[in-house]
Amino acid sequence: MTRHYNFCAGPAALPAVVLERARDEMLDYRGQGLSVMEMSHRSEGYIAIAEQAEADLRELLAIPANYKVLFTQGGATLQFAAVPFNLLGPGGTPNFLNTGIWSQKAIDEALHLGGAAHIAASSENSGHSAVPRPADIRLTDDAAYLHYTPNETIGGLAFDYVPEAYQPDGKEVPLVGDLSSTILSGPLDVSRFGVIYAGAQKNIGPAGLVVVIVRDDLLDRARADIPSLFSYQALARSGSMLNTPATYSWYLAGLVFQWLKHDIGGLAAMDAINERKAAKLYAAIDESGLYANPVALRNRSRMNVPFVLADQHLDAPFLAEAEAAGLLNLKGHRSVGGMRASLYNAVPEQAVDALVDFMADFEKRRG
Amino acid sequence: MTRHYNFCAGPAALPAVVLERARDEMLDYRGQGLSVMEMSHRSEGYIAIAEQAEADLRELLAIPANYKVLFTQGGATLQFAAVPFNLLGPGGTPNFLNTGIWSQKAIDEALHLGGAAHIAASSENSGHSAVPRPADIRLTDDAAYLHYTPNETIGGLAFDYVPEAYQPDGKEVPLVGDLSSTILSGPLDVSRFGVIYAGAQKNIGPAGLVVVIVRDDLLDRARADIPSLFSYQALARSGSMLNTPATYSWYLAGLVFQWLKHDIGGLAAMDAINERKAAKLYAAIDESGLYANPVALRNRSRMNVPFVLADQHLDAPFLAEAEAAGLLNLKGHRSVGGMRASLYNAVPEQAVDALVDFMADFEKRRG
Repeated sequence: MTRHYNFCAGPAALPAVVLERARDEMLDYRGQGLSVMEMSHRSEGYIAIAEQAEADLRELLAIPANYKVLFTQGGATLQFAAVPFNLLGPGGTPNFLNTGIWSQKAIDEALHLGGAAHIAASSENSGHSAVPRPADIRLTDDAAYLHYTPNETIGGLAFDYVPEAYQPDGKEVPLVGDLSSTILSGPLDVSRFGVIYAGAQKNIGPAGLVVVIVRDDLLDRARADIPSLFSYQALARSGSMLNTPATYSWYLAGLVFQWLKHDIGGLAAMDAINERKAAKLYAAIDESGLYANPVALRNRSRMNVPFVLADQHLDAPFLAEAEAAGLLNLKGHRSVGGMRASLYNAVPEQAVDALVDFMADFEKRRG
Repeated sequence: MTRHYNFCAGPAALPAVVLERARDEMLDYRGQGLSVMEMSHRSEGYIAIAEQAEADLRELLAIPANYKVLFTQGGATLQFAAVPFNLLGPGGTPNFLNTGIWSQKAIDEALHLGGAAHIAASSENSGHSAVPRPADIRLTDDAAYLHYTPNETIGGLAFDYVPEAYQPDGKEVPLVGDLSSTILSGPLDVSRFGVIYAGAQKNIGPAGLVVVIVRDDLLDRARADIPSLFSYQALARSGSMLNTPATYSWYLAGLVFQWLKHDIGGLAAMDAINERKAAKLYAAIDESGLYANPVALRNRSRMNVPFVLADQHLDAPFLAEAEAAGLLNLKGHRSVGGMRASLYNAVPEQAVDALVDFMADFEKRRG
């Protein structure tokens, strides 16, 4: 068996100990005589798994008691639609911060569903290389919520602050965050948010699961015609079992939470590791003559590090040699090209060390 | 390691050889150095897995070329909403056959989304113990489609025919089937349907995946305000990769399709096995003085066999003793009580033999 270093932007690397546990429990979950995949979601055995996962996530993120945690399906893309359906019942305009491709997708979906969408601030003028400053954010009088993407996985652009959201008259509006690519990468003040959602396939578990964290007072703002499976209220009331949930993915997420608690030692420890990983890679880029990253220093993503080579003709050999060296999935997103190393939680520090060594060696030989 | 017999209605038993394969490939998929869970859905390696799964499903079901096969998320419950969004763009009334709890859920969701819903025929008067006959089905002049549930998993009620759907003026309307609990249990004439959808967690794979089979000419009937992830058109155009799909579940579905092809020998062979399994269990019920099933003979489900004990006080000991004997998940749905044995594809004939023996022994001792 070989395990390579995997810098995939998502579905991303998972901790080897999680996969080993899943492997060992595949045919017979702890003597119960069946796989987790084969358990009724309403069975005692499965409910214990589901509740433990929620409890561990609540503990890791210190989620306040007035927030519901939902385990649902459809990824962040479904939430692009679910958020307006859940929050626009009383009317008002959704406000957005536009910092790149993923923010734009959320905006497009809100418009597509037939509503308006106000861009409260945008980094478009900077080519999405620096996020708007707090003073640049201007909400509408009727802002129903402010949606933003703390980390843009394609641009590698990250907010260095959590925005405050007020209507011009000073009324606070709920902040909605697509935390798919940053959740669990470090401590988080959940109380700053009205709604957090996160596709699982970066820092939580396998693709097909999405976690939603929603403040209780926002559960009754849905449009009357909301599809049932979008409804935070319906999901909350049913313990995320309005229908059969993605049971196996939920179980794997629980194993990842256990790994974060017991193997890593919690989110402060994870934060320190992620800080070191990113610092090493950005230092290697900045100190080289071959590699470059265009993002403003304070907005550089710790999770996704895009970089270009000074000579595009070296892209193909760089990727081929990296792969031969066991460094997988370094190709940048098809919409922007170049390289991208995603350094999610499960990417070990040794992977970054190996990448940095490879980059230096490649530059020496080919740069 | 112990493997018990699992009669769960869903998430249901999976073939042991599929789980063994998944276990062996968990950390390193065929020498590629990573788990399938960790692969980019756009990587060559993963695309090969996804395409093979679709090809095998097409072969098994002999799906005509003018049908798209989609692998998406949210279960049948999401499809209850997705179907009206996809088919009611040009207007018209959705028509339904009501044969029990799952048909009713589809009807409720269509109404909830703000439309009308016409009940073209219902088995309610029979207490859902016999399906309407073909001559009883009356569609509206403006029927946009006819939706039905060929097998009701809770009532154990199955259609013994595929309905024909015509408006009163003779115009054919698309037939939509929720085949969650019967797909792949035997050969199927896909050409009779406009849309087939099936939650994976019975005969396809793990919960969280849903397969949709849709005729090409129905791809352009969507409402303008359809959420993107509901859109058959958008899913078809993107090869079910509008966003990150449930990659691992899709892979497991592919392993199940391989098992059906190579271990079972195709759907005709599967059909014969399922026929024998159901015949044995119904015979045991009908020949006993303790057990009873209320469904009309011609509408008895092969997949879900509900039965009651003549004395309800025996329910608890029956379940406890069955579980102790390694016969799991025989409790009936919480809405109806009694017992239910689900005999999906992955439940081996030996499991039914063991159940029948246990039932006879229990009756002798306690009946």
